[in-house]
Amino acid sequence: MSDSQTSVHDLREMVRQFVDARDWQQFHAPKNLSMALSIEAAELMEHFQWITPEASRAIGDDPNELAAVGEELADVLCYALAIANELNLDVATIMRDKMVKNKLKYPAAEYRGRYGPKDQGGTPDGE
Amino acid sequence: MSDSQTSVHDLREMVRQFVDARDWQQFHAPKNLSMALSIEAAELMEHFQWITPEASRAIGDDPNELAAVGEELADVLCYALAIANELNLDVATIMRDKMVKNKLKYPAAEYRGRYGPKDQGGTPDGE
Amino acid sequence: MSDSQTSVHDLREMVRQFVDARDWQQFHAPKNLSMALSIEAAELMEHFQWITPEASRAIGDDPNELAAVGEELADVLCYALAIANELNLDVATIMRDKMVKNKLKYPAAEYRGRYGPKDQGGTPDGE
Amino acid sequence: MSDSQTSVHDLREMVRQFVDARDWQQFHAPKNLSMALSIEAAELMEHFQWITPEASRAIGDDPNELAAVGEELADVLCYALAIANELNLDVATIMRDKMVKNKLKYPAAEYRGRYGPKDQGGTPDGE
Repeated sequence: MSDSQTSVHDLREMVRQFVDARDWQQFHAPKNLSMALSIEAAELMEHFQWITPEASRAIGDDPNELAAVGEELADVLCYALAIANELNLDVATIMRDKMVKNKLKYPAAEYRGRYGPKDQGGTPDGE
Repeated sequence: MSDSQTSVHDLREMVRQFVDARDWQQFHAPKNLSMALSIEAAELMEHFQWITPEASRAIGDDPNELAAVGEELADVLCYALAIANELNLDVATIMRDKMVKNKLKYPAAEYRGRYGPKDQGGTPDGE
Repeated sequence: MSDSQTSVHDLREMVRQFVDARDWQQFHAPKNLSMALSIEAAELMEHFQWITPEASRAIGDDPNELAAVGEELADVLCYALAIANELNLDVATIMRDKMVKNKLKYPAAEYRGRYGPKDQGGTPDGE
Repeated sequence: MSDSQTSVHDLREMVRQFVDARDWQQFHAPKNLSMALSIEAAELMEHFQWITPEASRAIGDDPNELAAVGEELADVLCYALAIANELNLDVATIMRDKMVKNKLKYPAAEYRGRYGPKDQGGTPDGE
């Protein structure tokens, strides 16, 4: 797994160079990029829309389907990093900051096995 | 900027530990995560829906608005990495593989200043 | 059920008058409206993201939750009709035309109980 | 324009019969339908992602592009009505109820030419 040897900066630079080489910064207004990100997220979702949650966990059993899902996830990440590039946001910082907030909002003891305030826990479907 | 000192693996582990501590893996079917990712992408888009592309480039001038946008982008990235965790996809690998495909699909010489096949280049609005 | 007594035109006029009374046509570029529509669709999806498909069928059992879902669906429809208003598209015509195409793409005999080309039929999860 | 002669009920029945003829109700859990709706909204958005708001207003000048946008809008409406069918929600009722709420939330006098609380009015980009 090369994620251990790759910095977030490395991935951002890969995206930046691709954009620069095509003079696409002119199209990369955050408004436009947020639309592109949302469109790619929908294309990822398309692989799962008619199957059950359980079947979606087994998608890795089909190498072709897993590769297709991986491509859509890569597109999502490319646009997310393009937004970070455009707005000069440090990804590690905003993620760490958000995680601090999330830990306060969802204390582990209180939310263990519950996905939200209305969920009483129990089986995954909240029954 | 700490993105230079942070590996993709580091961020993935941060997400994994948050999920594990709450026993939320039971909710993290890829189907559900793809919905969550798409919802967070929409929340990011919400900041830009009524403003012009130009105004969206200037959003960094308002520190409160930039911080709010950064939080939404962090949420998007958390769910994207949660999907990678769930499906055991190496982010650096899928992004590099996709970039190879993108370079073949959009040769730099042909797409310089054009966002797609229908765009004749010229001004950013395709005129 | 008043849908029998309400024409599509009636609903479009309701949306048009609301927009006109606020001089909001200036914001209603199709680009912006398509973002608004997508955001509202995500807010609808939010009600279902962590529950099973079966649990989502039972949402009508909780009147408060059903009312909340109904509000999000109304928002989606308002923006969809605002787009039709802005582009002078007749909704009944585009829906009938699309249904003709859908019937050719998904012949009833071939797709009975199958959601797509890859689905072999059988149980809803494609097994 | 046939929207004057078509009731909302007529469109809902058209969708219902298409679904029934394929025995697709088994796939039409509200969770799945909300994903499908969001995906179609993204496909509509795709036509506008790289162009300016002004250029999106002129999309009707290109008959092929307008027809393509109309098809995506039809898909959005089909799934929105499929959700109404599945949950037995009367569309005219939920839209009228939501409009009453919207009028209270956005009084015409206060929001004329302003899209939201943060918008000070003036030009469409909020300057």
